[in-house]
Amino acid sequence: MSKLYTIGLDYGTNSVRCLIVNVANGAEVAASVWIYAHGTQGVILARDPNLARQHPADYVAGAEITIQQALAAAKKFVKGFNAAQVIGIGVDTTGSTPLPVDVNGQPLAFDKKFAQNPAAMAWLWKDHTGVAEAAEITALAKKIRPQYLAKCGGTYSSEWFFSKILHCLRTAPAVFNAAHSWIELSDFVPAELTSTLAPDKFIAGVCAAGHKAMWNANWNGYPDVKFLSRLDPKLGELRSRLPARVHSIDRAVGGLTVAWAKRTGLKAGIPVAVGAFDAHLGAVGSGVAPGALVKIIGTSTCDIAIAPNHQKLADVPGLCGIVDGSVLPGYFGLEAGQSAVGDIFNWWVNYIQPHGEKLSHRALNAEAMKLKPGESGLLALDWNNGNRTILVDQRLTGLLLGQTLYTTPAEVYRALIEATAFGALTIINRFEEYGVKISQVVNCGGIAEKSALTMQIYADVTGRPMKVSRSAQTCALGSAIAAAVVAGAHKDYPTAQKKMTGLKPKIYRPNPKAHKIYRELYPLYRMLHDAFGTQEWNGNLFAVMKKLIEIRGRVRK
Amino acid sequence: MSKLYTIGLDYGTNSVRCLIVNVANGAEVAASVWIYAHGTQGVILARDPNLARQHPADYVAGAEITIQQALAAAKKFVKGFNAAQVIGIGVDTTGSTPLPVDVNGQPLAFDKKFAQNPAAMAWLWKDHTGVAEAAEITALAKKIRPQYLAKCGGTYSSEWFFSKILHCLRTAPAVFNAAHSWIELSDFVPAELTSTLAPDKFIAGVCAAGHKAMWNANWNGYPDVKFLSRLDPKLGELRSRLPARVHSIDRAVGGLTVAWAKRTGLKAGIPVAVGAFDAHLGAVGSGVAPGALVKIIGTSTCDIAIAPNHQKLADVPGLCGIVDGSVLPGYFGLEAGQSAVGDIFNWWVNYIQPHGEKLSHRALNAEAMKLKPGESGLLALDWNNGNRTILVDQRLTGLLLGQTLYTTPAEVYRALIEATAFGALTIINRFEEYGVKISQVVNCGGIAEKSALTMQIYADVTGRPMKVSRSAQTCALGSAIAAAVVAGAHKDYPTAQKKMTGLKPKIYRPNPKAHKIYRELYPLYRMLHDAFGTQEWNGNLFAVMKKLIEIRGRVRK
Repeated sequence: MSKLYTIGLDYGTNSVRCLIVNVANGAEVAASVWIYAHGTQGVILARDPNLARQHPADYVAGAEITIQQALAAAKKFVKGFNAAQVIGIGVDTTGSTPLPVDVNGQPLAFDKKFAQNPAAMAWLWKDHTGVAEAAEITALAKKIRPQYLAKCGGTYSSEWFFSKILHCLRTAPAVFNAAHSWIELSDFVPAELTSTLAPDKFIAGVCAAGHKAMWNANWNGYPDVKFLSRLDPKLGELRSRLPARVHSIDRAVGGLTVAWAKRTGLKAGIPVAVGAFDAHLGAVGSGVAPGALVKIIGTSTCDIAIAPNHQKLADVPGLCGIVDGSVLPGYFGLEAGQSAVGDIFNWWVNYIQPHGEKLSHRALNAEAMKLKPGESGLLALDWNNGNRTILVDQRLTGLLLGQTLYTTPAEVYRALIEATAFGALTIINRFEEYGVKISQVVNCGGIAEKSALTMQIYADVTGRPMKVSRSAQTCALGSAIAAAVVAGAHKDYPTAQKKMTGLKPKIYRPNPKAHKIYRELYPLYRMLHDAFGTQEWNGNLFAVMKKLIEIRGRVRK
Repeated sequence: MSKLYTIGLDYGTNSVRCLIVNVANGAEVAASVWIYAHGTQGVILARDPNLARQHPADYVAGAEITIQQALAAAKKFVKGFNAAQVIGIGVDTTGSTPLPVDVNGQPLAFDKKFAQNPAAMAWLWKDHTGVAEAAEITALAKKIRPQYLAKCGGTYSSEWFFSKILHCLRTAPAVFNAAHSWIELSDFVPAELTSTLAPDKFIAGVCAAGHKAMWNANWNGYPDVKFLSRLDPKLGELRSRLPARVHSIDRAVGGLTVAWAKRTGLKAGIPVAVGAFDAHLGAVGSGVAPGALVKIIGTSTCDIAIAPNHQKLADVPGLCGIVDGSVLPGYFGLEAGQSAVGDIFNWWVNYIQPHGEKLSHRALNAEAMKLKPGESGLLALDWNNGNRTILVDQRLTGLLLGQTLYTTPAEVYRALIEATAFGALTIINRFEEYGVKISQVVNCGGIAEKSALTMQIYADVTGRPMKVSRSAQTCALGSAIAAAVVAGAHKDYPTAQKKMTGLKPKIYRPNPKAHKIYRELYPLYRMLHDAFGTQEWNGNLFAVMKKLIEIRGRVRK
């Protein structure tokens, strides 16, 4: 088995990555990255800042180019490697990134008529043009289908499937009318590689359908016709043309076509797994298991946990989703997240640029590391880009409190890190309040890799050890694991994860003294969080500044 | 009269200034400045950051040096000038800056035994070592003499007379026991120049006594023996040795001695007016009159208004003081202030240093000038150094709210200016709520001189024209006016002010469109102000961020 490999294809916002992984031990033997050709860094923009599209031609080109390059690299650097040793492909992508397709399942944007029309392209996850439609969907569901919202945290987002389709219907009817159906990017790529785009062959992943399109086996799949028709009769008519089959990632959508084998150099017929979102396969690549929370920490954060689907699980208010089988078969997949983490630190360093060139992330990290918890007297909210979990409210903004005439840039930097840590703790608490026990936290992504300070603060704030995933490419690795499972290299996911994933040796353990201070600070954070973030809170905030000063005085002594 | 002059001596925190002014038209014909010789920039510091003292020898040396230098400059630059044309001297100083004196009224620090002892020096206004004693005085007064607090805003400050003396009694009993009495710097200098330091000749100003030492003619002067004895029997005993005569600035304490005439070159016998605090004489130099609010805006702000003393005036909660005759005879002097204004902008520019060297005050002003009210979505509280009026609470801290991932340094800078403007409006409203009508606002000081943006924002926020005093040295000018009145050059203050003060031609008038937006923003500021600054407020802040986003969206359109 030591000479068998799988490929993980990871479609990000700006580029696609191909990772070749040894199925025996998870060794990442070769990789390549290609930046999408269209738009600005792969994203097609417009005067409307809410608009963000991608051209599906880039998805196809990206697969061909990165697989070829990764194979070439493997041949060069791995003794005895040949492409026939690659036994399967897995795919993860951003999402919800839906695209309109014709009756054969081909993207409308491949038709000359629509090639330049942004409405016919893929509507990238961060496209917010459907904000009014999202509000409309939420309002209607609250009224007549509360169960739909209960599985996605109480609010349907402008980033999701039906908000975008309804917005297309309203603003680009020619495209809507020409579309036979809409499919997710995470389903498009596997179907393209296996020539299963045609509706009768097409298999959709439950990850995208369940988390973003309100698909649930309990109510017979997608939202019912009556509901969709109330939004627009044409949306109701679309329902019967949406994908009929929806599966977890433990099966293949088909085998690689001869044409794609030729284009890439891979063996024809190797299985391509059902696709899923990057964060979900990233969780797989980080060894997600019952009791483990995987935090993918980059510009924003995605938090993934799973819980056995034979147990009763309460709806968890504020979670982005609870979907049976969306991460691993046999488990509910639970998704939460913070709308900005690294982006907040980047704002401070790149927009405010304290001390100009002098204070980089590295310098601020070093300065902030010298500070004790509570020493600055500062407290911040991590809402510069809104709050995804648990408030599900994009119309929230940042808050910084406690500054004096002597507050330093590093003190603010640390307060911002602490704010994201308090946000992370709020999510962990929410999981546990609703019966999802979190017994370990595994981090991955850029911040987890690069900022020891952040990891230590997360440990000190949550009072839990912070582990870091061994791989720097957990999403692509998770896809490669999916490929290994559907190719039969491992009998199931737990086995494959045991062999192919691991942790870095360094574990950040909570410092009891620091944790004690943070246990005093967190209730203050939570008070601000509830006062500004909920309509239910009622009270007075006079004590907040006093308590911060009191703690500051004590810590400085 | 066109060849007569007076001298204003202005004792600041770091230096003393001498200004020679033509009594006919207020022309400032010569000036000189001397930085005190002792300590760091004139301030004697210690390990305890609350300690700030000055050596009284500097006050004496400062008078001699600056008068000599100013006279020399006048001789050089004013045709026909000679020192005999100077007909009087006025003095303003920081305060409360009390110093212990011996039985002859000589500062204890002039005794070799005490020359190096900080407790025997002048306790500079910003010395906060008596913070515990201030709390004790406030608590006792609340209990048994609420009328004392009603005239100073409800809280007795650590910066004031009795807090410092009681702290000396407790921590430096040798000094306290050696002191026959304590006098204010604003009284020391006039008495020194006229040899009236001895208790039987000594005249204290009502400005310092009334605003900082709870002196009030209605209760027979200083707080009663019983009250002071409850704090400490020795403080009770001190009462009979405190200055017996207390007056407004419309009289002289005496004539310049022959010795001082020799030291300075002035004519012996010219009158020296009763002294007062810098802000109060600054108000005189800005033309303060019933209905006019004078704002002296520098690192912090002092707001002075007057109201006829024959009318009944309610106690105004939160005001630093209401004292009959403290600004002008025949009027209640009302003092308010903001603990930091320019200091907050300095914090942003000098401590945070956004964009490093690139963004100076000037550059941030220019960038912020381009922004429309409400455009940034930001809202701040001006509490980086606590809140003097109307909350009287030093244990408050800054707050910034509404930041996104794209918030710029200039947006924050403008939000900080706006915060101080909202603070200024809160003070104006407080005056008017208690029957002190403000019909015009006259600004002076560094910020009023230098920042057109700040003045325009103050006009737009308050909806009132902002006038700026003609003189850049209104405190010293006010002292020179006092000198002109006691020397008989003008029959009274209104006449002297009419002749000797004036406004700059530029008046900042409110822009109705901007004012309309600020009328929407101010209630949000006030909500934060009350939620964090009072124990009475009860409510929910969910609407604050939403409303800011709504306004931002509207303004950006």
